Amino acid sequence: MAQAQKITPRAKDFSEWYNDVIMQAELADYSPVRGCMVIRPHGYRIWELMQRALDDMFKATGHQNAYFPLFIPQSYLAKEAEHVEGFAKEVALVTHTRLRATGKEGAAAIEVDPESRLDEPLVVRPTSETIIYAMFAKWIQSYRDLPLLINQWCNIVRWELRTRLFLRTTEFLWQEGHTAHATEAEAEAEARQMLGVYRKFQEDWMAMPVITGRKTESEKFAGALRTYALEALMQDNKALQAGTSHNLGQNFARAFNLQYQTAAGGLEYAWNTSWGVSTRMIGGLVMTHSDDNGLVCPPRLAPVQVAIVPIWKSEEERGQVSGVGGEVKAELAQAGIRVELDLRDNMKPGAKYFEWEAKGVPLRLEIGPRDVAAGQAMTARRTGGKAPAKLEGIAATVRAALDEIQTGLFHAARDRREAHTIRGVTKARFIEFMKGTGGFAYGGFCGSAACETEIKQATAATVRVLPDPEFRSPETPKTCMWCGKPSVAEAVWAQAY
Amino acid sequence: MAQAQKITPRAKDFSEWYNDVIMQAELADYSPVRGCMVIRPHGYRIWELMQRALDDMFKATGHQNAYFPLFIPQSYLAKEAEHVEGFAKEVALVTHTRLRATGKEGAAAIEVDPESRLDEPLVVRPTSETIIYAMFAKWIQSYRDLPLLINQWCNIVRWELRTRLFLRTTEFLWQEGHTAHATEAEAEAEARQMLGVYRKFQEDWMAMPVITGRKTESEKFAGALRTYALEALMQDNKALQAGTSHNLGQNFARAFNLQYQTAAGGLEYAWNTSWGVSTRMIGGLVMTHSDDNGLVCPPRLAPVQVAIVPIWKSEEERGQVSGVGGEVKAELAQAGIRVELDLRDNMKPGAKYFEWEAKGVPLRLEIGPRDVAAGQAMTARRTGGKAPAKLEGIAATVRAALDEIQTGLFHAARDRREAHTIRGVTKARFIEFMKGTGGFAYGGFCGSAACETEIKQATAATVRVLPDPEFRSPETPKTCMWCGKPSVAEAVWAQAY
Repeated sequence: MAQAQKITPRAKDFSEWYNDVIMQAELADYSPVRGCMVIRPHGYRIWELMQRALDDMFKATGHQNAYFPLFIPQSYLAKEAEHVEGFAKEVALVTHTRLRATGKEGAAAIEVDPESRLDEPLVVRPTSETIIYAMFAKWIQSYRDLPLLINQWCNIVRWELRTRLFLRTTEFLWQEGHTAHATEAEAEAEARQMLGVYRKFQEDWMAMPVITGRKTESEKFAGALRTYALEALMQDNKALQAGTSHNLGQNFARAFNLQYQTAAGGLEYAWNTSWGVSTRMIGGLVMTHSDDNGLVCPPRLAPVQVAIVPIWKSEEERGQVSGVGGEVKAELAQAGIRVELDLRDNMKPGAKYFEWEAKGVPLRLEIGPRDVAAGQAMTARRTGGKAPAKLEGIAATVRAALDEIQTGLFHAARDRREAHTIRGVTKARFIEFMKGTGGFAYGGFCGSAACETEIKQATAATVRVLPDPEFRSPETPKTCMWCGKPSVAEAVWAQAY
Repeated sequence: MAQAQKITPRAKDFSEWYNDVIMQAELADYSPVRGCMVIRPHGYRIWELMQRALDDMFKATGHQNAYFPLFIPQSYLAKEAEHVEGFAKEVALVTHTRLRATGKEGAAAIEVDPESRLDEPLVVRPTSETIIYAMFAKWIQSYRDLPLLINQWCNIVRWELRTRLFLRTTEFLWQEGHTAHATEAEAEAEARQMLGVYRKFQEDWMAMPVITGRKTESEKFAGALRTYALEALMQDNKALQAGTSHNLGQNFARAFNLQYQTAAGGLEYAWNTSWGVSTRMIGGLVMTHSDDNGLVCPPRLAPVQVAIVPIWKSEEERGQVSGVGGEVKAELAQAGIRVELDLRDNMKPGAKYFEWEAKGVPLRLEIGPRDVAAGQAMTARRTGGKAPAKLEGIAATVRAALDEIQTGLFHAARDRREAHTIRGVTKARFIEFMKGTGGFAYGGFCGSAACETEIKQATAATVRVLPDPEFRSPETPKTCMWCGKPSVAEAVWAQAY
């Protein structure tokens, strides 16, 4: 059971606050394996709700799920030069397949059997382009087999040195879409479409506003032609990359000889895309909405949307409020609302409020004897505000409140982001901003990697995206805010996770 | 696209037939990684439908999903002596975490960086008892924290020497339930309950009849007190272990110091259970129902339940039958039926029939111009039988047909199993039976491992289970069918996958 511990305030230490919120809400826990975490039921339920919503969107856009091996032969990773360079330093390698007894005691009782060494080491997938496009090359013969639209839900391993719960873990869960198309235009449209799907999910479900755009050459995916990303601003004014979608061009098709016969009878390399979001989004959700009392979870992704807490002083009252609580629970559940009735008798109501708040439940219904007499319940929103509500028609009232909370969270997050966004920056203003609160800074960019490096060294900020038209500033910057040379594109900088 | 190749008849080579059915139905494919397969969309959709049904049952019985690390420190595996002995010879071991460039060309361009060697190797989970009970020990303090009912959907790696698609692969997908209880009785009830959940799923969804019972000491799970299993008889009269449920006693609780404070204030070790089913079930589904034309899939798990094939000779007819086909599709989809309308114009109807049959679609609707005129469609069941059906009320007609096919498959499989089951065997009859067709043989068993070994050497048969009461023979055997000593329990023998 959760021990009621104090959550470090955000203002004191944002990073500790983040860990405290996760531990108190029982979203995750540290494991005995370095950099790997355990996703606890309350956190995993959020992931399941995310999966269900995204998977429905993937299927609605014509994608099918499949499953490819966890292991990738070392030689496959090597086939695309930029790709292997990008991942070589952070891969878990399987080299042996047996343990043997040593005759010693305890932990020393077994050791790796050197005779079980593999001829070729296997890489635990850090991403699956290589193995998937090798299979695509087997399945695709003609233009009639295109487009091939595949998605995979799986675990991924990247040997990260510095890890943080949900945001950066050695193992994480994600989905990776992989598609093959006959033309460059179709691949580009697919990459953009999936970026749109992610945006819709992150805004409508996570209530997390994002800006979309293209990554610079130095920030793009290893092996991609172009990378698009979604960037959200956390409460500490650092950016979180919340998802990416890549137009892979023909890079992997060439590496794996993924060719198809055209209608005219010629032979062409296919065009690929890949795109993914991960359990990292749960970290984004936490850092977008939560407060010093714990998790704030948008209703559409809340494992428990409503907690009913009956209040009693005598056994007689207990029977009465529990009975009404049970009826309300049944009515809400019937309406498709995820609801819990908290009848624990070893806890006072205040302790229950505290716990449900820490767990991010959007709406609490308190039902005491006087409420029963008045045919009402007291509603308390996680985002603030208490009001009585008639028990008659309670499901509709609750549904409306949840919808309001969902919308309210999105607007509050968007307002916060806008309050920490500056546009048309000069170099001086930029440095001052990044030394101060930080946030999203829009300005002209010359496009050179040298400027990116200098800016990163000076301010720890990176180009998050070259924003899509709808996010761009009304006035197009003329010069690079750093070096003063002509600007090739507006850029959004921020310090980032 | 599927190339229409001939499927090897079952009578000629059952094993080749099995592979042909899987390849033709595009359920799975071989991967470049030894022993690992790719689950293709049609096969993965079956798995998704299985997951959904099982997950609903797990949640209805109070279980919550969570996710634990893929990697297990080598020393953790060593903590339960029988457990490590059971798995040591088939584990993938991660020993290094970086690749480095060699300066050579092609596949030799990279190699394992010897400086990235881990102090302690990590085992890729062959099952998760050790890591999960280590976490349970952290979370459980008092009797109030019990029972803890957790399930995990994940991938598993066991380094198998001989692999077969779905039945035995180096990596496979499964769920593993792990629970902790205050008493032995509760753990036993949980292990039995989950066996019942599996039986219900396998009979009602997979239409695969199973017998349940207890495993002998030599066949039980490494580290368990008692193992219960479900066994199904395939069309080649070999048994398939389709799932297991273990009462782990206090073995892992002792190994990981999983103790709780009792209501009276004492300290006790918890009682654990674990239980799992895997993608192996898809192999069982294939071998239970399919025929020489390909996959036969029970309707409740069929990715496509109805394929509509319009038949036309002219453009005018094409418009007409496509229009009606579209209406029927909409009506069936509206009724929650998974339906495809096959409008491909580069294939003749016969080729389409052939393909949908190979893919196991339970019901085909053929709609030609004369059918349109008569307000009907021709229904063709995958299990045999053609009949016209009125388009009016087609959804109800189709639903009834699917239900009949589902029930019919179960009855046919049960009848087949009973026809290949013998009871009250003598040693001579047993040997003859196992040399002949094989199947389930019920007989008295002395309980000795020596008899099990002898029987296995002589006939390749093993005790599948000591059956639960409802599967036992009316007459309790008095003596061991092999050695003639007093019988301690009736046993069911078969050659097995």
